[in-house]
Parts: sequence; structure tokens; C-alpha cells
Amino acid sequence: MDLKELIKKIEEDARFCGQIFYNADRSSLDISSKEGQNNFVTKYDKMVQEEIKKRLAVTFPDAVFVGEEEAEHAPVDKGWVFVVDPIDGTANFIRDFHMSCISIALLKDGDPVLGVIYNPYAEEMFTAIKGEGAFLNGEPIHVSDKELSGGFIIFGSASYYDDIRDKSYEILSRYEKKALDTRRSGSAALDMCAVACGRAEMFFELRLCPWDYAAAGLLVKEAGGAAHRIEGGDLTYDRNCSVFAANALCKDEWKNMV
Amino acid sequence: MDLKELIKKIEEDARFCGQIFYNADRSSLDISSKEGQNNFVTKYDKMVQEEIKKRLAVTFPDAVFVGEEEAEHAPVDKGWVFVVDPIDGTANFIRDFHMSCISIALLKDGDPVLGVIYNPYAEEMFTAIKGEGAFLNGEPIHVSDKELSGGFIIFGSASYYDDIRDKSYEILSRYEKKALDTRRSGSAALDMCAVACGRAEMFFELRLCPWDYAAAGLLVKEAGGAAHRIEGGDLTYDRNCSVFAANALCKDEWKNMV
Repeated sequence: MDLKELIKKIEEDARFCGQIFYNADRSSLDISSKEGQNNFVTKYDKMVQEEIKKRLAVTFPDAVFVGEEEAEHAPVDKGWVFVVDPIDGTANFIRDFHMSCISIALLKDGDPVLGVIYNPYAEEMFTAIKGEGAFLNGEPIHVSDKELSGGFIIFGSASYYDDIRDKSYEILSRYEKKALDTRRSGSAALDMCAVACGRAEMFFELRLCPWDYAAAGLLVKEAGGAAHRIEGGDLTYDRNCSVFAANALCKDEWKNMV
Repeated sequence: MDLKELIKKIEEDARFCGQIFYNADRSSLDISSKEGQNNFVTKYDKMVQEEIKKRLAVTFPDAVFVGEEEAEHAPVDKGWVFVVDPIDGTANFIRDFHMSCISIALLKDGDPVLGVIYNPYAEEMFTAIKGEGAFLNGEPIHVSDKELSGGFIIFGSASYYDDIRDKSYEILSRYEKKALDTRRSGSAALDMCAVACGRAEMFFELRLCPWDYAAAGLLVKEAGGAAHRIEGGDLTYDRNCSVFAANALCKDEWKNMV
């Protein structure tokens, strides 16, 4: 498998599908709730998932498809598996916040080897192949070389989960003092891309799903940063986990976080 | 003075100047510090201010100009005065966060009667004339009709000011529990525009400068919302103040905030 050839096709698939939600008819989103508060799905999440699933099956028929908008997910630990979020930042999409993306990871035997994240609002295509570096619109990207004291923390609020949401703000209150400022966008994948390309120094969220971070975690690591669970240990792709991402200078900040 | 004729010209001035920082040469921003931490200025803040000052002097010669990037500011309480932030969200501009705008308010005898805010990244032009409603790219906008429990709080961190910054997060920790989720963009003017056009329900920041909120406050009010100091009382245009902005359903949330 030539991943450099493959990623070009996946980029085209992502670009096509990003245009579907970029050009959405906002008068008819058909919003419904999923489990947890603030957890919504629109007809566009489903439509984009159907389209990307169909396209990826043509692009790389050997890979199994795992997408956010499915009731049951195939196992991810063996062979080739696509792990896909058709619209990361659905709440932003619903509220017209212009901060959503499509995220596609390709796993081989449970390990991400390729990641493509496309933000149609900013026309930004983030790509990475394991061992080959990370790119934004074809240009190499790197995490920043700023200390946290001169940097930005982007935080996720784990807003779907009442049990850990307040804990997120408690951590934020402790860590904002260490940084220049904070940001919260509502798209974990784009937040991690911001760390990867040096716009921010650190990101944390107490609970995310594999499709939120599978591609973005590879992006951060290939850009020279760290991406793992907040409590330490590798990101998990068969179940939810917490996520910490940072540049090299901030990579130890997770140690007293939880 | 025909404000409807005037605002069209000011929109053109804003659009022209927005393109200056949108197309900035990011390899040469010439960043320097101003008073307070996280308070930076680039050569583009100064360049945009010079250009907008020159253009507004042609567009409406009777008005005095007050801009962020000046050592001393003219009085704002008498006659016609432009109150301008050439780049609101300078830290975002520096870090390439695509969340900055130019903000232009026109005051008559100390009261905002016209506001123009242009975000070149999203190609969004927010406009309002006192008594004539608020608009986004020419279409009427309104604050949302959501309760806070189903809505978004956007917060400002007062990041320039050590004395009140932690207080901002303390307020956030209390109020996030009442809302569906939170956002932080780093551009107060765009945050208030988000409230005005119904993307978010509430915004607060403990200290801002008149050029941050002079246009956006009018936008929120003309869109049917509330905009005043967090402790109650009108926004001040001759000095800094706190800012609370909300839709009609959340308009009383300021009462126990500080």
C-alpha cells in the first residue's frame, strides 16, 4: 500500500464531503438528540457519513469503515480500518459557528498510520502519514516552540458528560494561570490541529471518542508534539478516552492535571 | 446626515481595510508588546488604523477619529466621533486563528448611532444603525430565542489584566453549569456579533475598551438583545468598562454575576 498515493485520494474525498456541509441548506438541518446533553446529530452528519463511506470504499476497498453515526462499530484492532467523524463540531455546524471539519484516520492493526482533517470554512487540509511528518495544505507544519507561560491553552469541556464537565472547568481554572490565554472552539479535531500547526501550545479534554482524535493525534505527533491520555498512556481507538496534546515544551503539563 | 447612505461607504472602507490584514505577510508582523500581558500590537494594527483613519476622513470629514492604536484619544462625548478598532483580536491575528475583525462605531454626542464590524476570514459584514435594526451581509439578524439552559455562553478572559482575570474563570465556572456549552474566541467584537445573530445566547467580559464594544453593543441592541455593564448601567465610551450581552431570555443573568 502506497500511503502517499492513497492520501491524495482521501484528501479529494474529504474535500468533496466537506463541501456538503459547507453548502448545507441551513433552513432544514433536521436536528435530533443523541445520548448525553449537547449531543446532536443533523441530517448532514448522516448524509456526509454515507457519502464518505461510499467514497472511501472505492478509494481503498480493503479497509473496514467505522463512523461516528453508526449504532454499532466494527472492531478496529486488526487490519485496515477507517475511523471517521463526518462532521466534528456538530454543535458549531448547527449554530453556524464556522468551526467544523471532517476527520478521517486510517488504522493498521489498531494504530493510526494516516490522517486527513479538512475544514471547509478556512479551506484548510491537514494531513499526516506516520513517519512522514504533518502538513497543512501541502506545507510542512510543526508544533510551536513557545513555553506555556507565553502560550494558549485550548480546552474541551466534555460537554456531553455531566459527570466530568465541571471537572474540566476546575482544571481550566488551575491551568489558565500558567498560560497567556485560553480558547474554546468546540471542535476537538481542529483544536488538536491548532496545536499541530503551532497556533496553540496545549489542548485537553476529559473524554472524547476515537473519531474525534484518531486523525488529529497522529497530526500532533507527526508535527513534533505529544498526544496521549491526560492520565498518561496511549490514546485508545476501541473506546473513549481523555486527550492531552501539546508541543514539546509543554509535554509534561499533563502530570498534575487530574 | 443620511446614515443609510453613510453606512454603505463605511462598509466599503471596512472591507478594504479588512483585506489588508487578511492578506498580511505573516513572515513579517513586527509584533511588539503594549501595557498588560497578552497585549500585543503588530505593524498591521498600525497600518490598518492609518488607512481606515484616512478613508473615514474622506467618507465623513465632520467626525473626529478615535482609534485603539493612539497614545492619546480625543473626547467622545460631543459631536460626531468614530471609535475604531483596526484589528479586534490581535492575538488571534498573530497566531493565525482566523478570528479577527475591524470594528467601526460612529457616536453622536457620546451615543453610538452606527456600527460596522467586518470579519474578512468569514466574509461577514455586521451592520447596524440606531433604530433601524441589525444586519449580517445585508440580511436582518436577531438574537436567539433560546434559554440559557439550551444555549452557549461566550466568555472573555480579560487576559490583559491580572487583577480580574482569575475572577473571569470563577464566573465562568458558576455560569457554565447553567448553559449547554461555552466558547472563547478571543475577539470580543465578534463574540458580541455572535450573540446579535443568534449563534450564542450570552457574552461577558470583565474589562474591555470602548473600541471593542462600541459598534458591537449597538449591534446586539438593534438585534433585540441587551448590552450593558456586568454590574448594570450603560456601556461607557470615554473609558473602559465590563460588558454583558445577551438575548432577551437571558437578559437578567448579569444580576448575580459579580
